[in-house]
Amino acid sequence: MEDDRISLAHGNGGRFMRELIEEIFARHLSDSNLDVQADAAPIDLNGGDVMITTDGFTVQPLEFPGGDIGSLAVHGTTNDLAVAGARPLYLTLNAFIEEGLEIEILDRIVASLATAAREAGVQVKAGDTKVLRRGEGGGLYLATTGVGVRLPGVHPSIHRIQDGDVAIVSGTVGDHGTAVMLAREDFGLRGDVVSDAGPVMALTEALMGFDGLRFMRDPTRGGIASIANEIVRATGLGVRLEATIPVKDPVQSVCEMLGYDPYYLACEGRVFAVLAPEYVDEALAAWRALPGGRDAARAGRISATDERVILETPLGGERFLEELEDDPLPRIC
Amino acid sequence: MEDDRISLAHGNGGRFMRELIEEIFARHLSDSNLDVQADAAPIDLNGGDVMITTDGFTVQPLEFPGGDIGSLAVHGTTNDLAVAGARPLYLTLNAFIEEGLEIEILDRIVASLATAAREAGVQVKAGDTKVLRRGEGGGLYLATTGVGVRLPGVHPSIHRIQDGDVAIVSGTVGDHGTAVMLAREDFGLRGDVVSDAGPVMALTEALMGFDGLRFMRDPTRGGIASIANEIVRATGLGVRLEATIPVKDPVQSVCEMLGYDPYYLACEGRVFAVLAPEYVDEALAAWRALPGGRDAARAGRISATDERVILETPLGGERFLEELEDDPLPRIC
Repeated sequence: MEDDRISLAHGNGGRFMRELIEEIFARHLSDSNLDVQADAAPIDLNGGDVMITTDGFTVQPLEFPGGDIGSLAVHGTTNDLAVAGARPLYLTLNAFIEEGLEIEILDRIVASLATAAREAGVQVKAGDTKVLRRGEGGGLYLATTGVGVRLPGVHPSIHRIQDGDVAIVSGTVGDHGTAVMLAREDFGLRGDVVSDAGPVMALTEALMGFDGLRFMRDPTRGGIASIANEIVRATGLGVRLEATIPVKDPVQSVCEMLGYDPYYLACEGRVFAVLAPEYVDEALAAWRALPGGRDAARAGRISATDERVILETPLGGERFLEELEDDPLPRIC
Repeated sequence: MEDDRISLAHGNGGRFMRELIEEIFARHLSDSNLDVQADAAPIDLNGGDVMITTDGFTVQPLEFPGGDIGSLAVHGTTNDLAVAGARPLYLTLNAFIEEGLEIEILDRIVASLATAAREAGVQVKAGDTKVLRRGEGGGLYLATTGVGVRLPGVHPSIHRIQDGDVAIVSGTVGDHGTAVMLAREDFGLRGDVVSDAGPVMALTEALMGFDGLRFMRDPTRGGIASIANEIVRATGLGVRLEATIPVKDPVQSVCEMLGYDPYYLACEGRVFAVLAPEYVDEALAAWRALPGGRDAARAGRISATDERVILETPLGGERFLEELEDDPLPRIC
């Protein structure tokens, strides 16, 4: 690692974070069989295919158009189970609350969390709270663990991806990152972009019957560009992202003004899936029939030619999408 | 609640924390069947008796005599499963890391966590990290979820406690709280008190065969006085703590100097158990035969006469131990 201290880049979903996880967490936990690439890990209990996952949440502001840290925690955690091919059943919840947080805000957020849990069909079975001294927290941090059971059908995995496979995405990208950024009012910009945060179970379960399903992931920190880079690292294959990836006009405008790239911005209610090419039309049709998948589109293809992520621009150009180094938007989730 | 803002007292293990949990978390999560009194909750998966629990850790300093936040997270979480009558099997881990934390410290802490997990026989199956901006965190916070399976034998529960039952404790109380307090060097005091933080599985499993086992809990925030108050609230019975509860001399001295009460100070490797009286001698003998139970002693008795917690002093006096209101030691676990 470059320095002897933690920097913001260690939390950004990109290279420094991966190195931190590989060099510290995964190394020390190697005999735990910790798979740092998986969204959810199977646990052997009573012979069942139980899946478990966990997530921390530090989004700022705590409430934003389209959600808040409470609903986000539920969606983020249950979506990780969903894209691993599991149905979420249970959650645990840790809340780190800063001294001085208004109880009314906390009340709203926990209510929102509870509603999101009900809608996702999960029960919160255990919890813990800690209060942080004023100045030792950012209002509220949450940590949630999800437990679910594997659905029948294929077991999607990044290692199933093959040359010639096709990627699809369930909707527009970058909405969550843009909505949170605008809600911070750091830039003097206003907009009506709403976070895409929401459950993806209907989307993932719609694909579980397809033999040609290889891999699913919900783009969060680091966006779809980071997922594509993970595929390159895990498989040695290249990913060519295509100009068909949907981006909302206001998201594109904000990105152009501020120098962001929507492909790196977080979503919180989308699925990026890779399938064998012959299944793509049917998969897109299945998604478009769902409320959360109306804007589903082809996103790119897997190609053994270049071992990197290439974005094909609308005018026929190409540019490389490298692994993130800086954190474009701290506390986005 | 007294105020419209969160105060430190909301995290102290006492009344304000209970009210916060009851009035906000439990209320909104009531259809999750969240049991805010249980150390671990059963989850129904494939017909097995799976138990799940979760904990957050914010101890300051991050390293202290006898442990660190990493080993503490493992012990705290696995101990919650143990006292619920389960054998811990899996953990998930969230780390909230403040920008600026030395990587060397983080490395030591994660190594310590991994060692503690190995010794406890648990695998860390999922994890997540977030980096907090400088000034938005206290160096490092951890959140861990534990999953285990219920052991054969009785199902210990606070609701099994009966009038005439006897309480025992597996060792000296207040060591952890005192060790952390001294490590902070806030008081200009030095001492060689070592935290009792450690696994309690051997202690809890030693009691699981006793039909007369009613209830077990590991005293953490709020100490054994808070457990006794929980018993009073849950059962309507009184608890008379007795002068036989072991307290180390240096712990007693520090408490006298600073005005603390050792019965309210955190332990992190002790078990407080309640049994039918005819099982007490055998239970104490079983504990004293174990390395973690050499100082096990009778701690008190359940009495329907007074519906509160009464401490019997060595000279025959009595005083009430009320539910904590202030937080005597923030960031103790």
